[in-house]
Parts: sequence; C-alpha cells; structure tokens
Amino acid sequence: MSGGARAVARCDALGVAPYSDMEGGLYRGYLNPSYTAAQDALAGWMAQAGMAVYRDAAANLIGRYDGTQPGAPALLIGSHLDSVRDGGRYDGPLGIMLGLEAVAALHQSGKRLPFPIEVIAFGDEEGSRFPAAMLTSRAVAGTLAPEALDIADADGVSLSQAGVSLSDYLSAARGPGTTLAYLEAHIEQGPVLEADGLAVGTVTGIAAQLRYQAVIKGMAGHAGTSSMPLRRDAVAGAAEMILAIEKIARADASDLVATVGRIEALPGAPNVIAGEVRFTIDIRSGEEARRDRAAEAILDALASIANHRDLNYAIQRVHDLPASPCDPALMDLMDAATADAGYPIRRLVSGAGHDAMVMAALCPTAMLFIRCKHGISHNPAEHVDPADADVALQVMLGFIDRLGATFDPA
Amino acid sequence: MSGGARAVARCDALGVAPYSDMEGGLYRGYLNPSYTAAQDALAGWMAQAGMAVYRDAAANLIGRYDGTQPGAPALLIGSHLDSVRDGGRYDGPLGIMLGLEAVAALHQSGKRLPFPIEVIAFGDEEGSRFPAAMLTSRAVAGTLAPEALDIADADGVSLSQAGVSLSDYLSAARGPGTTLAYLEAHIEQGPVLEADGLAVGTVTGIAAQLRYQAVIKGMAGHAGTSSMPLRRDAVAGAAEMILAIEKIARADASDLVATVGRIEALPGAPNVIAGEVRFTIDIRSGEEARRDRAAEAILDALASIANHRDLNYAIQRVHDLPASPCDPALMDLMDAATADAGYPIRRLVSGAGHDAMVMAALCPTAMLFIRCKHGISHNPAEHVDPADADVALQVMLGFIDRLGATFDPA
Repeated sequence: MSGGARAVARCDALGVAPYSDMEGGLYRGYLNPSYTAAQDALAGWMAQAGMAVYRDAAANLIGRYDGTQPGAPALLIGSHLDSVRDGGRYDGPLGIMLGLEAVAALHQSGKRLPFPIEVIAFGDEEGSRFPAAMLTSRAVAGTLAPEALDIADADGVSLSQAGVSLSDYLSAARGPGTTLAYLEAHIEQGPVLEADGLAVGTVTGIAAQLRYQAVIKGMAGHAGTSSMPLRRDAVAGAAEMILAIEKIARADASDLVATVGRIEALPGAPNVIAGEVRFTIDIRSGEEARRDRAAEAILDALASIANHRDLNYAIQRVHDLPASPCDPALMDLMDAATADAGYPIRRLVSGAGHDAMVMAALCPTAMLFIRCKHGISHNPAEHVDPADADVALQVMLGFIDRLGATFDPA
Repeated sequence: MSGGARAVARCDALGVAPYSDMEGGLYRGYLNPSYTAAQDALAGWMAQAGMAVYRDAAANLIGRYDGTQPGAPALLIGSHLDSVRDGGRYDGPLGIMLGLEAVAALHQSGKRLPFPIEVIAFGDEEGSRFPAAMLTSRAVAGTLAPEALDIADADGVSLSQAGVSLSDYLSAARGPGTTLAYLEAHIEQGPVLEADGLAVGTVTGIAAQLRYQAVIKGMAGHAGTSSMPLRRDAVAGAAEMILAIEKIARADASDLVATVGRIEALPGAPNVIAGEVRFTIDIRSGEEARRDRAAEAILDALASIANHRDLNYAIQRVHDLPASPCDPALMDLMDAATADAGYPIRRLVSGAGHDAMVMAALCPTAMLFIRCKHGISHNPAEHVDPADADVALQVMLGFIDRLGATFDPA
C-alpha cells in the first residue's frame, strides 16, 4: 500500500467506533472518549514511524522525529483530529496522517533533516465539543486569552472538568524561535481543484472575511389587495439585492466570494406581502483590500435598491476577520516541490479557516490543499482519492527536502 | 353625530372588553363570550333602528326591516362580527354598522322599500376560533357540507359543544328565491382607493387565486471555499425567480397581483451556500384567464432560470380558487349611486375573500369598498375616516333606493 493510500485508509479506520461517538457516522469531539481512542491509535502509528510520542499540555498528540542539529527549531506538520457531528473522515485527520507518512518515508530511508519534525494532531479546530474553535492551536501559538477558556460543553462540563486546566492551556504555548514553520495539508473543502483537474494546490492564505446582517423593511400588506405599483415588498427588494451581490462578486472574477446563506421573510405567510426580510452577507477574499472594495460596492448597491424601492434598511457588520497570508518563501518551496513532482502549479486562497491561520502568529506557515470530491465536506459524503493523497505526500516530501536545503541555522 | 361617524364609533365601542377576549387589543372569536356580548349590543342598536331582531340557527344575528310587499325576497346587508386575534375594529363590523345605519335612516324618514331589508351579522368569516372560514355565510347560502362541521377549536371544543349543532347549521340555509340580493360594505384592506384619493369603490368580484409551493435545489457548499463560477446557489436562483415573478405581474398592469410572501433557505447558515430554497407564490386576478396566463408565464420563467443556473426545482399547486364576480346589474346600480352622491366611479377587484363570495351561490351580490388608511388591516392600526363611512352610507342608501325602483315583484 502506498503512503497516500495508507493515510486515507487510516482516516477511514478512525471513522467508526470506538473512534466516533456517533452511531452510523463520525463525530469525534475534543476530549471525548472517541478522541482519546483516536489519539491512542495515532500514537501507535507514530511510534511505528520512528517518532517519540507525547501529549502536550493542551492534550494535542505530538510525534517527534529528531533532526541532526541539536537545538534547531522544529518543523511542525499537522492538522486536527476532532470532527464535526456527522462529518467526513478526512477534514483534519488526513493532514495528520500525511505528516506521519512523510516522517515514515524519511525514517524508512534513514534520512534526517537539520531540524526536528514534529507531527501534531490538534485537538480542537472545529469547536466540536466546546463553543470555541481552534482552541488547541491557539494554545500552542500562545494566543489564548484566559477568559476564552471559561466555557463548558452542552452538558455543562467545563474544559478543566474535561481534563485540561486553564494553566495547562497557558503552559502549552511554544516560545518564539522554537518553531521553524508550520505545514498543513488539508482537503480543499471546495470545488476549485476538481474543476481544474488538479490533485493539489498551494494555499496563498486564509481569506479575509466580512459578515453582515441585513434587515430590509417595506410595508406588509395583503397579497390579494395591494396592487403591484403600490407595493413596498421587502422580499422583492431583498431578491434584487441578492442578485446585485452575486453580480458584484462574479464581476470581480478573482478569489472573491459573496454569499447570502440565510434569508427570512416576516411575517412569512403565503398571503401576506412581507414587511421585513432579514438576510446575511458573507464576503471573503485573500486580499483584504479586494474584499473591502466589494463590500463597499455591495453596500452602495443595497442603498440604491432600497432607495428606488422606497425600502428602509439597516446593515450591521457582525464579523471582520483579517486575512492570514501564508509565507511567500514557503509558497515558492511548495510550488517548486509540486513542479518537481511533475504536477501543474496552482495557487488558491482558503475561504475556510484552519489551524494554520492561528499558527501564523507563531511562525511562517504553508498549506497544501488536496482535491476532494465535488468540494463536499462536513458531510459523510466527503471523499478523497488515495492517488491524490499520494501526490500530496510526494509534494510534502519535496517541500521538506527543499526546506532542509535552505535551512540556515544562524 | 352623522350615521357614518356613528357606525365607526360603534365599531370602536366593540373594540374593547367585554366585546374582546384579548387584553389590550381586539380578538372576537365566533361563539366566544365576547361574540355573545357584541351580539347583545348590536341587537339593542338594531331594535333602536326599528328592526325586529333574531338569531338564526347558525348563531348569526339578524335585524329585519319589513318591506311593503308581503312575501317579497329580502335584501340582505351585512358582513361579519368576528375578528382575528389582535385585529382591527372595522374589518367586518363596519359593514354591519353601515347596514344598520342605512335602515335607521330609512326608519327615521318613514320610508319602506317594496322588499324587506335584513341586516345580517355573520358569526364566522375569519376562521377566528374554528379552523374553517366563512362558516356561517356558508350555512346561510346552503353550501356547507356536513363533514366540514366536524371541527374543534384549539381547546378541543367542537362546534356543537360551543353551542351550534350540525343540524342547526344545515337548517340555517335560506331557500332559493328568498333572497333578492346581498350587499356588503367592507374596508378595502388594500391601498388602491387611498392612492386614487377615493372614499369608496365598486367591487367587481373576488379575485381568482392560485397558490404554489416552489422548492429550488442547487448544491450546498462552504461560503468561503466555492468560487463564484462553480456555484449552484439556490438563494441566488430563487432571487432571480422572485424578480421575474414581480416583473411579470407588474407588466400585466391590471388587477393582477403575484406575491412571494414566505421564503426559507436550507441549511440556512451564514457561511453555507444554500442547497435548497422553498418559497410560496400567490397569484390573483379578477379574471381567471388573466391569472392563468400570468401563472403560465411565471412557470416558464422559473423553468428557464432553473435551467440556465443548473438548478433542480419542483412546483406544487396548493390552491386553485375560482373568481367570484359581483352581479353586473348591481355594479351598475352601485356606480350610479356613487355618481349621484357626487363621487367618482371606481371599480376594483377584491383580492381578499369575503362573505359575499359565499353568498353569490344564493343570490346576486354587490360589494362596496371603503378606503382604509395605508391599506392596513388585521392589525390594531386599521383605520377608517368617519367621513368615508358617511360617503359609503350615502352610496348604500342610493343603491337601496335604485334597487327599490327597479324591483320587479314578478
């Protein structure tokens, strides 16, 4: 079995009990019994691959493969072990298993890099059990505020009752200079690579995100008694706005995306013209300036539509997350490794958040996206071709090799 | 106080306890204590106006003012006494009070028509307590099926437990030939008269109605990771459809109306491209053929939009109610009475249902719409200018006078 196929098979093996807390599907919540069981299985595979295995203070599992230069900062390779309810098998675990396979390949050929490699399985990226996402990468990056840890799961169990105390989290932080880089392979969770017929792509960064809540107010009325010219129909106004949002995002023809995912009409009766519509707007781009230009164009369009339809509206900004770019030099290494492996180079932004965006506070980061079927994730239908996992593994090994060649212990 | 002002004031008087079952607002459910209290008050006013008062078998209250020709069929004038929860004071009661004022004016001047006039306060038009609308006008018109009476209110109280048995309802039917015509004055519940600056209008009939439930299916996806050209966004598709529906209805430029009043996106998360959208379509016109042509154009437009956006869709017809035209000769009488009173003639269709549509099975019907503020109804903000009620009363008296003049006892 190839390394990529084994990585995929191990994700599959972790997709059922005792590695899932859910009958007939996968749910692996941080610090749940399924999580501990999966860590135990992973620890065994890490040891087989020649790594020293330990759990850090935030209950992340780490396998360490020493380098040749004592005291050199570590290359961290990882992703997250937790999984959303009724999720897929590859979102998270595949990046861990590929890191593990990369080390296994080095170990098998007796090769060591100047720096140590640590394969890290983060515990919580999804907010799979507690109402906080990327908890354990934030612990490692040292960006956790103590007050962010005063949370409990749906049963009222606090983090410390679940096994990790506040001081544990704070002590899991890695010091500056201890980490050379962070490399994360992850399924794309989108359809771009599939559409382009590519197995992998170099991630340029995590997109900057804006989210708005729009409330459009017209005049409610009887659907039978209000003639068309006299209406101030909030649904029709919202429809025109949604098309304008789509048009602006399409016209940009870059990585920019804009989405209206939730919409509600009030009072919401078939025989009543809606007096109010509420909808969300989510705007993302790898470039903050591009995102902000689109947001401005969208807000202008909404104002103009509300004006010509005599509607009132209020738009509230509910999120503003900056972009988290990957390291340009590491992107170049990834591209070169891809080309060396004989595959076309493709750069793409990540619209979704990943542990890498948190780790960027600690060290330079690199991400490799792997094609997933129909772009589907957070769903049992999530699927990765083992051949694509092999391509990813090959590119990661090339990346590690090039990083080793450029390593300057100064 | 003028007759119109008194009619409005009496509606106001019935807007509070004991004539309402709701604290701080008006709710008068059929056969509730508030309903009986309102009947008692109304019975007193009817008697004062020179009428003989009785309750029919369906618990409708009727005041009879005899005519000069024995055995002549009666002119019924009425509307409904029940009111929706937190409703307005005029939707229903105003038509009864204006009928009462018309008789009071005749009585005061000692005038009798060849035929008797019966002012009827229907008990249930709104479905205010039981899950059935226009129950008591259907009883009078003789169009109630016995199985339609096997219903209970929200507390499980059946109609017969509430006081009216199945056989009572069936015995309330008036025989053919007993009824000369049915005249109903009602607030417009729409903005047309107000927009035209008119106090009253002649109703041409109750609009034919079609209602559809549309389900649009695209591909759900992550709002951050699916590039714009690859999306099959059900919300954007629905938005384009809603604008097409509005455009088709506007282009018709007649009484045709089309409304999307309810819309829902699934899964309905801000960061997920909706894979499915459900919305309702309500299409009405006084002319069935016009309504059906619009429905066909709408279904064609939806098919074309679904096709070019690669969306799947299903559209189910959930209602198909035929038009209920008012009697043309009676419309002419109403127009003439309006012109005689010195007001412009305006004909308009009723997009909403009324007892008149039920009574059309028994006799020729006529309706007069009265301007209401901003077209608002089913709302405490419902408002009628007493001066407009006076215009309506004047037109009704003219109508009755002309009906008397044309009455042929053959």
